[in-house]
Amino acid sequence: MKSMTTAARTSLPLSAIGQRASLPAVAALIKTALENPRLLSLAAGFTDNSTLPKAEFLAAAQALAARTGDPEYLNYGTTAGRPGLRRILAERLKYWEPTLPADTLDARFFITTGSQQALYIAVQSLCDPGDIVLVDRPSYFAFLEIVTGLGARPKSLPYDESGRLQIDELRKMLGELKRTGEIARVKAIYLVSYFSNPSGRSLSESDKAALGRTLAEEGVIVPIIEDAAYRELYFDTPHPARSVLTLPEWNEFPKLYAATLTKPFSTGAKVGFSYCSDETWLKQMLAIKGPHDFGSANYNQALFEEILGAGGFEKHIPKVRQGYKAKMLALHEALIAEGLRDLGWQWDIPGGGMYLWLRAPANIDTGMHGEFCKACVQEGVLYVPGDMCFGDNPARNYIRASYGVLTPDQLREAAKRLVRVAKRFAR
Amino acid sequence: MKSMTTAARTSLPLSAIGQRASLPAVAALIKTALENPRLLSLAAGFTDNSTLPKAEFLAAAQALAARTGDPEYLNYGTTAGRPGLRRILAERLKYWEPTLPADTLDARFFITTGSQQALYIAVQSLCDPGDIVLVDRPSYFAFLEIVTGLGARPKSLPYDESGRLQIDELRKMLGELKRTGEIARVKAIYLVSYFSNPSGRSLSESDKAALGRTLAEEGVIVPIIEDAAYRELYFDTPHPARSVLTLPEWNEFPKLYAATLTKPFSTGAKVGFSYCSDETWLKQMLAIKGPHDFGSANYNQALFEEILGAGGFEKHIPKVRQGYKAKMLALHEALIAEGLRDLGWQWDIPGGGMYLWLRAPANIDTGMHGEFCKACVQEGVLYVPGDMCFGDNPARNYIRASYGVLTPDQLREAAKRLVRVAKRFAR
Repeated sequence: MKSMTTAARTSLPLSAIGQRASLPAVAALIKTALENPRLLSLAAGFTDNSTLPKAEFLAAAQALAARTGDPEYLNYGTTAGRPGLRRILAERLKYWEPTLPADTLDARFFITTGSQQALYIAVQSLCDPGDIVLVDRPSYFAFLEIVTGLGARPKSLPYDESGRLQIDELRKMLGELKRTGEIARVKAIYLVSYFSNPSGRSLSESDKAALGRTLAEEGVIVPIIEDAAYRELYFDTPHPARSVLTLPEWNEFPKLYAATLTKPFSTGAKVGFSYCSDETWLKQMLAIKGPHDFGSANYNQALFEEILGAGGFEKHIPKVRQGYKAKMLALHEALIAEGLRDLGWQWDIPGGGMYLWLRAPANIDTGMHGEFCKACVQEGVLYVPGDMCFGDNPARNYIRASYGVLTPDQLREAAKRLVRVAKRFAR
Repeated sequence: MKSMTTAARTSLPLSAIGQRASLPAVAALIKTALENPRLLSLAAGFTDNSTLPKAEFLAAAQALAARTGDPEYLNYGTTAGRPGLRRILAERLKYWEPTLPADTLDARFFITTGSQQALYIAVQSLCDPGDIVLVDRPSYFAFLEIVTGLGARPKSLPYDESGRLQIDELRKMLGELKRTGEIARVKAIYLVSYFSNPSGRSLSESDKAALGRTLAEEGVIVPIIEDAAYRELYFDTPHPARSVLTLPEWNEFPKLYAATLTKPFSTGAKVGFSYCSDETWLKQMLAIKGPHDFGSANYNQALFEEILGAGGFEKHIPKVRQGYKAKMLALHEALIAEGLRDLGWQWDIPGGGMYLWLRAPANIDTGMHGEFCKACVQEGVLYVPGDMCFGDNPARNYIRASYGVLTPDQLREAAKRLVRVAKRFAR
């Protein structure tokens, strides 16, 4: 993990957390982008403007205002979130995971300010400084920043370059952790298992099951955080793997399923939701969330209760999927048309999500401080350097290219610029 | 501080924070209230339903929807918050603190999910476990829970029973902290200086100045967090004291001024704002906020930009002030009419805020687990036991009675029930 800033020397009595905190590396990229409006950003995780549900939000606001009685939606809610919304979310999760036990399903839900907040609180509830979280390789860089910000350490699970889990390597790794005694520091596992940020990949059900089975066999039964933020953002068909919530190989593990209504719909409204299988863990996370904010904004939850209840979400989201699919294809095809594949670069076509994960030839350093990245900024295109996306031993020849916010025409132009640079750096 | 729950024994690898976390004592009270709908709650900090700005929110939602161009308000914002809203807030703060330097004023602002989040991040940025925060006596219990939840310790500043700061006692206390070496653990000061939660009191400008002067003279120059959540919720006139931001006695101190748009207006929308005088501290707090949530909901900020810009806030808030004043008087007068003063109970008439701070005769234990509190629940009235509101050495004969959510008629009935119990406990 690179950080772009370090705390200046100061007489402030900063805590360990306060001293460690550094602005996310991406913040520096965004700043660069803002300072140069000609730059086209494949970096920022901003979402598509053209498919934002303007009409649905207005309709929901009007429906709330039309209700008789007190406008309770403008008063405080509870720390766990609106009961009505949690009931709807419980029904929706039953659709995705039909074998989930139905009793008190909604009591296991809590609402957060985006799913990011759930990830933060989950790590805060489990990890002391020095503890270890096992993560995908590559993994979501903002999650890595949560872990390191709290003084804990991300450690990559062994995946091969095509995204397959390496079970033999996993056994070796766990053996090594046992040998050194570090196994006791492993406090959680974190998977982005559907259309991952940054790789766009989904973990197969067999790999997900094998991971649970192996960890259980090795006695490493620690809480699993499954980040399903992009699960509903598929292009044509959902990824068929069940969640850890219902895969029998994960039965014994405490499980947190973290997802969000707003990533695929309206990131400005920030309504995340989580389901926790473990009563104690859930209670302690809520006890941590209380002092954070007493509960996320009730008004936003009421809007979503309205939008979901009126069918506005299910009606609108196919447009979003179509929009991202078109943009993914625009970028993908432009990169090929401009000749990037011919230069030895490789990538998969994702089935959902917001990212292409581009692998450059091994000799090209695409890292934040490398020449390639600088040349791209000069050429007018920005990306997330792949080296930010590894829990350890970062590979230096990856790029996360987001097609989230740019229009198809802008994506084609961004591809041109990127490939111009790639040509200059080709052997 | 009492906590109602403790973590059950579990195989979960909870962190120190995860183990320490306990549901706020008030959560247990709210649960009691929900289980018994006949109960009238003077406990919950919920706000007045009859003056919630339903029309203003609808108008703002419509105005946003009527804008041409991309509905960017439904896309992500930035971690610090919307620049336009921060500019408006900077202008408003200049109204309250005219001598505040105007340059880059808005760059010193950041938006949070209610002001509670700013308080959390501020403590997180400054305090390691074992550190000390100096607080009012009494102080805001949810702030005390932030401090203890992070493993730090609140310590009461010396006030007399009328709410005057005791400067001689303060010098003694600082001397004692120096003698024991604990002075190095003092990392922050926290004041709720306008219509305080729980006391309803405001710190006089001379006391606030004397506090800064004394601390500076004693060399205890640590960050000051001034919580101004209720500053705009005065009844007839604002409290005349300047903030620590512009009082010369506080010049040398790093300052955080934490306030909110939604406490006085619409608690369901949770838009807090803070101004920080210290660039490093601000930067580190934003670097902590990033991993928390990437910034509070952009949509809510856009709604407030609209509401403030259109004058809806300033037009509506006098109705809110009037509403709370009427409810404060309803409760105050009912308590007197029912005979509580005659039983030796005392309280001030606040000039704003949401609370009466009732002092029972010294022999009556109004604490959470005392007989008085139980008798009140049986009688159908709930309050916040005053013993929760002390950083240390809790007094056991206070009650925080909120007139926030009940109607005037309900307040009168709640007063009757409370006084019936008080009569039974009178000598």
